Amino acid sequence: MNRTKLFQQIQQKKSYLCVGLDSDITRIPKHLLELDDPIFEFNKRIIDATKDLCVAYKPNIAFYEAHGSKGWESLEKTLAYIPEEHFTIADAKRGDIGNTSRLYAKAFFEKMNFDSVTVAPYMGIDSVQPFLEFENKWVILLALTSNKGSNDFQFASQNGEEPLYEKVMRKAQTWSNPDNMMFVCGATHPEKFKELRSIAPDSFFLVPGIGAQGGDLQKVSEFGMNDHCGLLVNSSRGIIFAGEGEDFAEHARAAALKLQQEMASILENHLVVS
Amino acid sequence: MNRTKLFQQIQQKKSYLCVGLDSDITRIPKHLLELDDPIFEFNKRIIDATKDLCVAYKPNIAFYEAHGSKGWESLEKTLAYIPEEHFTIADAKRGDIGNTSRLYAKAFFEKMNFDSVTVAPYMGIDSVQPFLEFENKWVILLALTSNKGSNDFQFASQNGEEPLYEKVMRKAQTWSNPDNMMFVCGATHPEKFKELRSIAPDSFFLVPGIGAQGGDLQKVSEFGMNDHCGLLVNSSRGIIFAGEGEDFAEHARAAALKLQQEMASILENHLVVS
Repeated sequence: MNRTKLFQQIQQKKSYLCVGLDSDITRIPKHLLELDDPIFEFNKRIIDATKDLCVAYKPNIAFYEAHGSKGWESLEKTLAYIPEEHFTIADAKRGDIGNTSRLYAKAFFEKMNFDSVTVAPYMGIDSVQPFLEFENKWVILLALTSNKGSNDFQFASQNGEEPLYEKVMRKAQTWSNPDNMMFVCGATHPEKFKELRSIAPDSFFLVPGIGAQGGDLQKVSEFGMNDHCGLLVNSSRGIIFAGEGEDFAEHARAAALKLQQEMASILENHLVVS
Repeated sequence: MNRTKLFQQIQQKKSYLCVGLDSDITRIPKHLLELDDPIFEFNKRIIDATKDLCVAYKPNIAFYEAHGSKGWESLEKTLAYIPEEHFTIADAKRGDIGNTSRLYAKAFFEKMNFDSVTVAPYMGIDSVQPFLEFENKWVILLALTSNKGSNDFQFASQNGEEPLYEKVMRKAQTWSNPDNMMFVCGATHPEKFKELRSIAPDSFFLVPGIGAQGGDLQKVSEFGMNDHCGLLVNSSRGIIFAGEGEDFAEHARAAALKLQQEMASILENHLVVS
């Protein structure tokens, strides 16, 4: 999917919500566990309940890989079930030497037809570049992540000049463009969004960390939005595990609707002139 | 596997060789492609031909994931086929927020019973810690990688003090110990091994980059070895793709034997008094 289509979808749905399919088998409602593929059945119901409210789905690959080849099948079936209009993100945080990253790119872009993959920057240019060689596919590069451990290395300043996350964002933009790269910027650092936006004015940011991790949608949007929205805000557990019983999908819809309505109002204020 | 057993195996076999099972389907000998699971059949023959010469096997997960659920099955079968005496490394370069890293740890340590997983440090402590909570299992943390892109961020100095790879190694040792963490140190930086060894005197280093990537076994060993060896030197393509025909396994054995003999001689010189 290209940037124009993504923005069109955001405008149509008045939403920049991404639903994270972190479908942890230990938290899936019990009545689904009897079915042949509980993870897929869970995802199917979550997708049916939220697809008009969100523009993207993001399965975190760990929750599938944990079940070996069977989990991989659940992932393939889930991806096939997501409507074509949605932007799909393989949250895999991959990154390896060139010939290996190329294989990961093939796995997610050709074998499975995801629109994007999250990639870790530690190994530098040749670990990222193979993912950039596919038309209308995207790298979503870790920049400033939402977790506590983001303080360990990402803020370390480089030669007294810039913190590591900034160096990553600046350098990566010399390899890519806003049509094939986004950055992961965690909502748990809302005070940083003005600066993050100035470092990459035209890029989309994938923003995890609202909901269970405590980030703030209003602040992130106020400072992070650009005139093509430029944000995909993710909620995983806050939506998919909003309910625990047989009516879990209704609870998921209610949680997604609340965020979508908040987003609609923010979009109206921000993009009124565009 | 614990450190004592690993060292015993090194002494018995006079080898610190790790064979990388980067079993790229496009390079597997043609006569195997007719079989039901060519990747597994290839690995099986490589393992039979090299198991007395190496102490570890390291499948790079990308080469399996590229084939979806079928690739995952090849990986599971391969792992089951590796003799118990060998140290097994899932070269996955994972790392995510805590609850997600925990799932990856379960996938590789419980679902599949690997001895170790390679982990990327970018997301900091809570992305690494879940992997450290399994008895006799190991994190192999990326420190100074063997690829060209290692120059992009890993050498950036931190507050004028230390480069990022050094900060990673020092900080990670406050979370772990030499019985549950190793570091990836690329053989393409042989001039750094004296310093790397001084930063982590007792830790094992997993050393990729000899063979196809051009690293130097002698130099790496001279400066990197400690009195419990402390090195696992990996060769992937240089061994597994040494031959292309029906006799590929014999060529793989010859390539592995050459390295093992070189290692035997180095070990004899270095560990004569231990």
